[in-house]
Amino acid sequence: MAKEITSRSEDYSQWYLDIVKKAGLADNSAVRGCMVIKPYGFAIWEKIRDQLDLMFKQTGHVNAYFPLLIPKSFLSKEAEHVDGFAKECAVVTHHRLMNDPNGTGVIVDPDAKLEEELIIRPTSETIIWNTYKDWIQSYRDLPLLINQWANVMRWEMRTRPFLRTSEFLWQEGHTAHSTKKEAIAESRLIHDLYAEFAEEFMAMPVIKGSKSANERFAGAVDTYTIEAMMQDGKALQAGTSHFLGQNFAKAFEVKFLNEGNKEEFVWATSWGVSTRLVGALIMTHSDDDGLVLPPKLAPIQVVIIPIPKPNGVLMEEANLIKKELEAKGISVKIDSDKKNRPGFKFAEYEMLGFPVRIGLGARDLERNEVEVARRDTKEKVNVSRNEIASYVENLLAEIQVNLFEKAKQFRADNTSSASDMEEFERILNEKGGFIEAHWDGTTETELKIKEQTKATIRCIPLDAKEEEGKCVFSGKKSMRKVIFAKAY
Amino acid sequence: MAKEITSRSEDYSQWYLDIVKKAGLADNSAVRGCMVIKPYGFAIWEKIRDQLDLMFKQTGHVNAYFPLLIPKSFLSKEAEHVDGFAKECAVVTHHRLMNDPNGTGVIVDPDAKLEEELIIRPTSETIIWNTYKDWIQSYRDLPLLINQWANVMRWEMRTRPFLRTSEFLWQEGHTAHSTKKEAIAESRLIHDLYAEFAEEFMAMPVIKGSKSANERFAGAVDTYTIEAMMQDGKALQAGTSHFLGQNFAKAFEVKFLNEGNKEEFVWATSWGVSTRLVGALIMTHSDDDGLVLPPKLAPIQVVIIPIPKPNGVLMEEANLIKKELEAKGISVKIDSDKKNRPGFKFAEYEMLGFPVRIGLGARDLERNEVEVARRDTKEKVNVSRNEIASYVENLLAEIQVNLFEKAKQFRADNTSSASDMEEFERILNEKGGFIEAHWDGTTETELKIKEQTKATIRCIPLDAKEEEGKCVFSGKKSMRKVIFAKAY
Repeated sequence: MAKEITSRSEDYSQWYLDIVKKAGLADNSAVRGCMVIKPYGFAIWEKIRDQLDLMFKQTGHVNAYFPLLIPKSFLSKEAEHVDGFAKECAVVTHHRLMNDPNGTGVIVDPDAKLEEELIIRPTSETIIWNTYKDWIQSYRDLPLLINQWANVMRWEMRTRPFLRTSEFLWQEGHTAHSTKKEAIAESRLIHDLYAEFAEEFMAMPVIKGSKSANERFAGAVDTYTIEAMMQDGKALQAGTSHFLGQNFAKAFEVKFLNEGNKEEFVWATSWGVSTRLVGALIMTHSDDDGLVLPPKLAPIQVVIIPIPKPNGVLMEEANLIKKELEAKGISVKIDSDKKNRPGFKFAEYEMLGFPVRIGLGARDLERNEVEVARRDTKEKVNVSRNEIASYVENLLAEIQVNLFEKAKQFRADNTSSASDMEEFERILNEKGGFIEAHWDGTTETELKIKEQTKATIRCIPLDAKEEEGKCVFSGKKSMRKVIFAKAY
Repeated sequence: MAKEITSRSEDYSQWYLDIVKKAGLADNSAVRGCMVIKPYGFAIWEKIRDQLDLMFKQTGHVNAYFPLLIPKSFLSKEAEHVDGFAKECAVVTHHRLMNDPNGTGVIVDPDAKLEEELIIRPTSETIIWNTYKDWIQSYRDLPLLINQWANVMRWEMRTRPFLRTSEFLWQEGHTAHSTKKEAIAESRLIHDLYAEFAEEFMAMPVIKGSKSANERFAGAVDTYTIEAMMQDGKALQAGTSHFLGQNFAKAFEVKFLNEGNKEEFVWATSWGVSTRLVGALIMTHSDDDGLVLPPKLAPIQVVIIPIPKPNGVLMEEANLIKKELEAKGISVKIDSDKKNRPGFKFAEYEMLGFPVRIGLGARDLERNEVEVARRDTKEKVNVSRNEIASYVENLLAEIQVNLFEKAKQFRADNTSSASDMEEFERILNEKGGFIEAHWDGTTETELKIKEQTKATIRCIPLDAKEEEGKCVFSGKKSMRKVIFAKAY
C-alpha cells in the first residue's frame, strides 16, 4: 500500500496529494476548486475544531451565526477591503430555476433576477459589522467577543486540497471593543492562543510575528501571524489575527456612547484559522509511508491488531486492553477483520497515521507480553501485558513531544541568515527554508525581492532582537531581521 | 421586561417573535429571509447539535463535508426531485466582481460568467450521490453511513426566525446500502433516534408516522416523520427520515458488485433535522414570561443571584454552591452584577428560560437556607444549604419530566376525532389541534381536504390500530385513522 505513495524527495507536491488520497482525507468534487472532505479527514478537522472551540470559550468567546450571503454593496464600503479582497468571489444573481421550455432540463428563470446581487462570503467583516451597528449603543454593550464556524468561498485559480480551495471551512472571530488598547490586547491574546494550539496540539512549531504592510489583511491596521515551516522548507501561514482599528466601525457607522456619554467609533479585531490546518498537519509530520498524526489530534490514537487473526481469546484480550486504555482517556480501535494479513494491516494503519499500534500475538501473550509499535519512529518494543496502559499513556505523550522537537530541529536546520542578495538567492535555490535578513521596512524593497526571488516576508518576528544592520536588498539601515521564505 | 412580550392568547405569532427577540435568540439580517443566530440562540443549537452528533456516532455514523455549490444539471437528474424541490434556490452565475468604471462601487464582471450555473445546495442528495459513484464499487464498500452538518438555502417567500428561513443550518445524513432491507432499517433507526431525541432531550412528545405520498420528500419512496404539537395546536414537522429506494443510485448510476459478483444499484436513505428545532423548542414550552428550556438543552441550567447585591460573603458562598453543582455536571452562572435589583434579574432569567434560579440572601443563609425557584411552574421553596446540590440535581430531572408530561397532556387535550367533514371543520375552527380521522388513502381526497380546510395529513401513525371505518371526506372504506392538522 505504502508503495503507492510518491516519495518526498522525488516529488513533494505529488507526495502530498498521494497522502491526501491514500489516507482517505479528501476527494475532488464536481465543482471546480471545491473538495469533498472525507470522513477521516473530517474527523481530524473535528479534533482541531473542538479543541480550538474549547480554547475560545475558555477565553470568554461565544459562537453565533451570520448569513452566508452578503449584499454586493457591503463589500465596497470599506475601501481597502474591497480592493484587497473581494473581487474573486461567487455571485448570486437569481433566485429561481424553471423547466426549460425547449428541453428536458432546467434553466435559470430570467424573471427571478435579484435587485442587488449577493456574494457568498469570502469573509464576514462587512455583514457582521452591519449587524453590530444594531447591537452596540453604549459601552455597556461592549466588548462583543463573537466567533463563528462557517464555510467561506474565494474563487481560487490554483487549488490544492486543504491548502487552497475555493470553498473552505474555518472559524472567524469578530470582536468589538471600547478602546484601542483592549482591541490590540484581544488580537494578541488570540495570536498567542493560535500559537499555543499549533505547538501543543499540532506539534507544529510556529514563528509569531506581525505582517508587513504589503502582506496585511485588507482593512487591517495590524496583522499578527503564525508561520510554520513545511518539510519542503516552504512557509505556511497557519493563522492570522487582525487589529482592525476603527476601519470597519467607520465604514458601517458603528458608534457607542462611552462612560463620559460621548460618541466614539468602536474598535475591532478579526481572526481565523481554516481547514488549511489539516494540510499543515499533513505536511509537517508525515513521511513516505503515509500520514503521521500527533496523538492529541489523531481521531483514534491506538489500534490493536490480533495476530495472526482475531479469535475468541485474542478478541477477549483485545477488549480488556481497550477498556484499560479508554479508562485513561485514550481512543482505541480493535481491528477485527479476518481477511487481511497482519503485514497488510500494519501498512494500512501506518498510512492512516495511527500513533500507536499494539500487536497482540498468541505467543507473546503466553509470555505475558504485547508488541507496541510507534508510528513516528517506527520502533517496536515488547511490553509487559500488565503495564500496557501506563506504557501507552506515556508513549503517546512522548510521541507528541518528539514530533514537536523533530519539527523544531528541522526548522532550525533549515533556517539561514543572509546579508546580501547573492547569499540570499544562493540559500533560497540550494537549500530553501527560512532566511533571516535585514530589511529596510519599505514595500518597494519587499516587492522587488519578491519579484526577483519569489520569496516574501513571512513576518516580522515579535521576538526579533534589535540589532542594527543593512537591508539585504537596498543596503539601507535596518534595526531587525525579518523572515523571508517561499510560501504556500 | 416580561411586560414587553405579547401574550399567547392575544397573538401567538407575535408572542413567538417577541420571545425570539427579547431572549436574544435571533435577529433579522440585511439579506431577505436570512437570520442572524445570536449567541444565546446559537448556544441552544449547539446543545441540540452536540447531543444529536453523539447519538449519530453511537449508531455508527461518521461526519464528512460536501461542497456548498451544486452544478445546475445535477438537479434535473432525478426527475421527481427537481419537480418537487429545486426551483426556488440561489443561483451563482458569475465568479468575479470588478470596479465600476462609471462609479465608485463594484459591479459583476460580465467576463466572469460561469459556463454552467451553480446552485447553493437546498439539500445535498445530488452532489453526494455523484460522489458516492466514485466511492462504491463492491459490497465491501457498503454501507456508507455519512452525515454532514451544513448550511442550506431555499428561497422562501414567507419566513419566520428558526421555523422557516432562506438559509438554515441542519444535518443531513446520506447512507448507502447493499440491500433494500438494510436501507429501510436505517431509515427506521434514524426515525427512532429522532423521536428519542425529541422526547428525552427536547421534552417534546412526537407522533411517529409515515408521510402520505403527497407529503413525501421529492425523490423518496417512503418518508418517516416526527410530528409535534405547538401551543397554538398547530403541527410542526420536526424531523424526517427518507427511504430513497434506488432512485438516486439510478439517477447517478451508482452500482456495486454484490457477493455473487453481480452488478446492482445501491439502496439509499437520507434524513435531517435543522435549526427549526430551536423554534419547536421555543413554541413547545415557553410562556408569557419568556423562554422555558428543558434542563437537558439549556445552555446554562442554574443561575445564582446574591440578594440584594453581591458582596464578599455572598459571592464566596455562591462560588461554593457553584462548585458543588458543577461536580454533579450541572452548569451554573453567578450573577455578579451590582447595578440591577433582584426583581429585574428574576424577570431577566425568566425571559432567558434558565431552568432553576437560586436566590442567595444573607438572612436565609443565617438560617442555613437558600431559595430555589423553578422556571417551569414558578414555584419557590427554601432548601437547606447543605442539601442544595442534590436538591437541584433532582429538581432538574423533575423539570425535564414535567415539561414533557405537560406537553403530552396538552397534546392529548387538543387531539380530537372526527367522523365527517362537518365535525372535522367544526373542531378545526373552534378548537384546532390534531384530528384523527379515517382517510381513503388517495391524494385526491387529501388535496380536497387541504383546499377546503387548510389542514394536511401530518402522518400515518406507525402505531395506528387497524380498524375499519369510512373516509371522513369520501365515505370510502379506510383501515386506519391518520392525523390531520394545520401545520407550520
